[in-house]
Amino acid sequence: MGAIEAVVDDRKKQFIENFIYPSIAFGGIYQNRYLLGTSLARPCITEGIIQVARHYGAEYIAHGATGKGNDQVRFELTAACLDPSIKCIAPWRLPEFFNRFKGRLDLMEYAKTKGFTVAATPKAPYSIDANIMHISFESGILEDPMAPAPADMYQLTVGPEKWPDSPEELSIEIEKGIPIKVTNNSTKQVIEGSVGIFSYLNDVGGRHGVGRIDITEDRFIGMKSRGVYETPGGTILFQAVRDLEVVCLDREVNKIRNSLAQTFSEKVYYGLWFSPEGSYLRRCLNLSQKLVSGKVLLHIFKGNVYVRGRAATKSLYDQELVR
Amino acid sequence: MGAIEAVVDDRKKQFIENFIYPSIAFGGIYQNRYLLGTSLARPCITEGIIQVARHYGAEYIAHGATGKGNDQVRFELTAACLDPSIKCIAPWRLPEFFNRFKGRLDLMEYAKTKGFTVAATPKAPYSIDANIMHISFESGILEDPMAPAPADMYQLTVGPEKWPDSPEELSIEIEKGIPIKVTNNSTKQVIEGSVGIFSYLNDVGGRHGVGRIDITEDRFIGMKSRGVYETPGGTILFQAVRDLEVVCLDREVNKIRNSLAQTFSEKVYYGLWFSPEGSYLRRCLNLSQKLVSGKVLLHIFKGNVYVRGRAATKSLYDQELVR
Amino acid sequence: MGAIEAVVDDRKKQFIENFIYPSIAFGGIYQNRYLLGTSLARPCITEGIIQVARHYGAEYIAHGATGKGNDQVRFELTAACLDPSIKCIAPWRLPEFFNRFKGRLDLMEYAKTKGFTVAATPKAPYSIDANIMHISFESGILEDPMAPAPADMYQLTVGPEKWPDSPEELSIEIEKGIPIKVTNNSTKQVIEGSVGIFSYLNDVGGRHGVGRIDITEDRFIGMKSRGVYETPGGTILFQAVRDLEVVCLDREVNKIRNSLAQTFSEKVYYGLWFSPEGSYLRRCLNLSQKLVSGKVLLHIFKGNVYVRGRAATKSLYDQELVR
Amino acid sequence: MGAIEAVVDDRKKQFIENFIYPSIAFGGIYQNRYLLGTSLARPCITEGIIQVARHYGAEYIAHGATGKGNDQVRFELTAACLDPSIKCIAPWRLPEFFNRFKGRLDLMEYAKTKGFTVAATPKAPYSIDANIMHISFESGILEDPMAPAPADMYQLTVGPEKWPDSPEELSIEIEKGIPIKVTNNSTKQVIEGSVGIFSYLNDVGGRHGVGRIDITEDRFIGMKSRGVYETPGGTILFQAVRDLEVVCLDREVNKIRNSLAQTFSEKVYYGLWFSPEGSYLRRCLNLSQKLVSGKVLLHIFKGNVYVRGRAATKSLYDQELVR
Repeated sequence: MGAIEAVVDDRKKQFIENFIYPSIAFGGIYQNRYLLGTSLARPCITEGIIQVARHYGAEYIAHGATGKGNDQVRFELTAACLDPSIKCIAPWRLPEFFNRFKGRLDLMEYAKTKGFTVAATPKAPYSIDANIMHISFESGILEDPMAPAPADMYQLTVGPEKWPDSPEELSIEIEKGIPIKVTNNSTKQVIEGSVGIFSYLNDVGGRHGVGRIDITEDRFIGMKSRGVYETPGGTILFQAVRDLEVVCLDREVNKIRNSLAQTFSEKVYYGLWFSPEGSYLRRCLNLSQKLVSGKVLLHIFKGNVYVRGRAATKSLYDQELVR
Repeated sequence: MGAIEAVVDDRKKQFIENFIYPSIAFGGIYQNRYLLGTSLARPCITEGIIQVARHYGAEYIAHGATGKGNDQVRFELTAACLDPSIKCIAPWRLPEFFNRFKGRLDLMEYAKTKGFTVAATPKAPYSIDANIMHISFESGILEDPMAPAPADMYQLTVGPEKWPDSPEELSIEIEKGIPIKVTNNSTKQVIEGSVGIFSYLNDVGGRHGVGRIDITEDRFIGMKSRGVYETPGGTILFQAVRDLEVVCLDREVNKIRNSLAQTFSEKVYYGLWFSPEGSYLRRCLNLSQKLVSGKVLLHIFKGNVYVRGRAATKSLYDQELVR
Repeated sequence: MGAIEAVVDDRKKQFIENFIYPSIAFGGIYQNRYLLGTSLARPCITEGIIQVARHYGAEYIAHGATGKGNDQVRFELTAACLDPSIKCIAPWRLPEFFNRFKGRLDLMEYAKTKGFTVAATPKAPYSIDANIMHISFESGILEDPMAPAPADMYQLTVGPEKWPDSPEELSIEIEKGIPIKVTNNSTKQVIEGSVGIFSYLNDVGGRHGVGRIDITEDRFIGMKSRGVYETPGGTILFQAVRDLEVVCLDREVNKIRNSLAQTFSEKVYYGLWFSPEGSYLRRCLNLSQKLVSGKVLLHIFKGNVYVRGRAATKSLYDQELVR
Repeated sequence: MGAIEAVVDDRKKQFIENFIYPSIAFGGIYQNRYLLGTSLARPCITEGIIQVARHYGAEYIAHGATGKGNDQVRFELTAACLDPSIKCIAPWRLPEFFNRFKGRLDLMEYAKTKGFTVAATPKAPYSIDANIMHISFESGILEDPMAPAPADMYQLTVGPEKWPDSPEELSIEIEKGIPIKVTNNSTKQVIEGSVGIFSYLNDVGGRHGVGRIDITEDRFIGMKSRGVYETPGGTILFQAVRDLEVVCLDREVNKIRNSLAQTFSEKVYYGLWFSPEGSYLRRCLNLSQKLVSGKVLLHIFKGNVYVRGRAATKSLYDQELVR
């Protein structure tokens, strides 16, 4: 074998535009609470991996997910949907691997023998997965579903002692379910551009402590697990779109769409973004969101998102009729 | 005609036990946001009216709801379900009535001529409907969906300036989806009894500003309307039951139940609590909630409900398995 | 008033191409049994009426449906969807009309006084509604749901004594859920063109007695009614498309589509073809049917349609895999 | 090891009463066409096997299903639901088995060496599975979905050349969705008792050629397969119950029930009869069928079931209202 090449591909923009925004527009939320931060990242990452694999003519790809979680399923189903000819290796399910490497320390040791230096941080008493949409915490001390999460665990959102004492007022402009402009009426800042907007919503949400949830959920493979999530920007945006769409959509269309959104959310959680049904659902949901355009007024304050007002570009709300 | 008798029937206990608690247990929420505070009150009130009507052999009952709202439908459908032989009069839809009484002042004037004294308060710039579950505000200045609600409007919940700086920790014990005991770990208070518990949750939620929403919704008769609601105790309880049930219910049972709950919520909003389908749904949902028993640990804080932990009496969560 | 003009518009082609074929492609069937023959005709007729009304600048249109049936709803909802500015007159709901004309004889009498000659046939003991898709029979002696329908009632299909003793074998070519070519392997006839194909399937189905059903159903306005229907061509085609689509569609897409088809069928039965939800459903269903192309082999025989074989243009059926 | 005991348990009565009748009452039909004849047999058989295994203290049970079909899943899921402590052996998925026995002949040879005589019939060019509800044919020459099934394949139903020239008229009395009495108005025979009724319906259906279908379907494990089925009695009964329930059930209850029935059918097909969701669905469906009582009049004729009339014990059909 010749030289080893490592490809580092920043997929933030694709993640936001092709996965996060559509999912929020479509009402993607698993079991009514989880905004799918990790579920959306997996098909985005796998799509990138498959592109690289094809570029290099690779026959195999690999992932580091364990055999008990959702992510193995998401990586492998996505890969199978995108290119069934490329095979997927899951070391944590192979005896020759998991028998040799019992844990983190063994892996670091091995890396050292191969000349890699890995920054060894003391292991947190829970596992962490982070991307631009959210951070998730699970395992370790969080496995007991009755044990409250430690206050110093959170990373994207500040705790109550740091919450500002006055709200920030945001006005979010939405076109076809997608945010195109955010105005902070408190600071007069105006933000545009997909990555800029999402990062900004993360910042505002973060400094007001928005988007922390502590839930148990049902994994793809059947077991229940407890997770704690921080999703500041996603939480703000999700509420804004939900609020606006009631004004923009016919009641019965909204009801049908809602039922499709439930199925969509489950499919995404199960790793089926690129499957035939995932694709069909996205196309149907795309049709309904064509009408969701307008503006939503929000207060971000004390860990919460307060919708204050909304105006649709083409509203079905008739102020005369309701009088 | 002989003497006029007025029957005053306090139906708080029935409202809480037969309508509020079941609805929360069953996941009753219209368009994913509205906890049905008024929708649940109408069948409860009508049930009481019909009992009185039967007691007195009355052939007619009446209600004061207008011809544009949901409540006319709820009163009349409930009455038709419970006793189709009793006819319903809706003065606000009768020309001889609405032509004579143009508004509130005319009514007060008329009452005076009949010897009734009505406490005439200056009319608020919006309409209010209150019961032990919630207060709703609509019409008037709220008709413009972009106009923020005034800060001094709220009655059941205090505003941010009065929110305490530390959370209250509640432990809610739930049996078959119904709260049977609330322990305030911060104050060591223990509350039992259906009315006591709900009133207490209203108090705690109220002093932390929990349960304010500002939404637009689709009315039964088709128009969109904007409503602002305060539902402090209901909001706390709804989140507690939703959290617990994920631990108690099989994933697929939960999914089926969820879909039934969506239909149930719509039917209740449409006034169909006592209809054949309302009754069938309640019986199906009752079956699933048989398993929802356990304890939920909550922080009530700064307008929010934070679930901190949960333990099912008979849990499907397997700490060993998830490890 | 000047001269009266009567517009006679043959809408057979539009009916078949824009209503019958899409509905069959989409799986349109009410309460699992009724192929919507009348429900589909109403929006087609109303669309034509509205076009004429607009052409002449008419402010009113009228229909002859009674106040107990589905058709009044279908005419009026369709008109309201297509042009809410045109008002709809329903004489059978107007006292000045139904008090004057007690029945058919009064109407014929009146027509005579105005110089119209109406072919007066002895009234059948049931009411009949016919179009190119089906004939429906209801009312009169059919009102008793236990009374068998008379053998001489049927018009589009022959009775058992006339059924041929050997099957006709049809091969139907379908593209995107729509039939584009029918080959009669028994007679070697080849039929193309939308109207030609449907008429031919009616003929073949008719001479083998295909498509008679005797059902009770739930009307829009709530009452149950008994109807007997003959739908020869529609029944053949419906089964052909249903058979082919299992081979063409991914299982999960088919499941989602099926659930949409149920809602679609109800909406069409309720007169909501052109409503926002009707339109949304048709667009979603159109997406899934894009893949339904291929050929189905059928025996038409003794009142029945026997599917004998099928081949998809782009099949998901893998003969190697199933071995 | 001591003596080998073989337990032969006739489970016809349990199969009919606990599986077939409930499934037909509940509307059990997979992908709108397949009446679940094999799917229902598997949990019934496994229930019997588990009872025997427990009686003998067995730790293992085995089944002869292959690794490509639905039945392995049904046997194993049922066993896991009923007693997760008993393990399941599937020889056709074990290399030491399938490498040694390449096919039927090897198995017969082996049986002979052990002193067993197996009646060696020439292998049909397709595989057959039969029980009292149906016979299914698949594989072999049927794998090509375009190849018509051979006329001499059928066993439970006679072909057209033997169909009688006049219909038999049956009157089926149904209580809570279950048939309790069948009267043959043509022969004056009266049949009662669960097994007697179902066998009789099989006979009548069989001699008129009722219940043959030729379909492709989506298997649990994802592949599509082609199957031909004969279900004479089940087909008659399914249509009778479907017809009666429209008269007995409120429209909206029927609609909810219908949606549950779709989920139920899929779960049964997937082997989940005894699962938590299977059990929950059966309990919900049981609630709705409480009201389905009455009588249905049928003609069984030329391969078809013609509903001629129906009368509910407590009907929602109002002959006065519909007039």
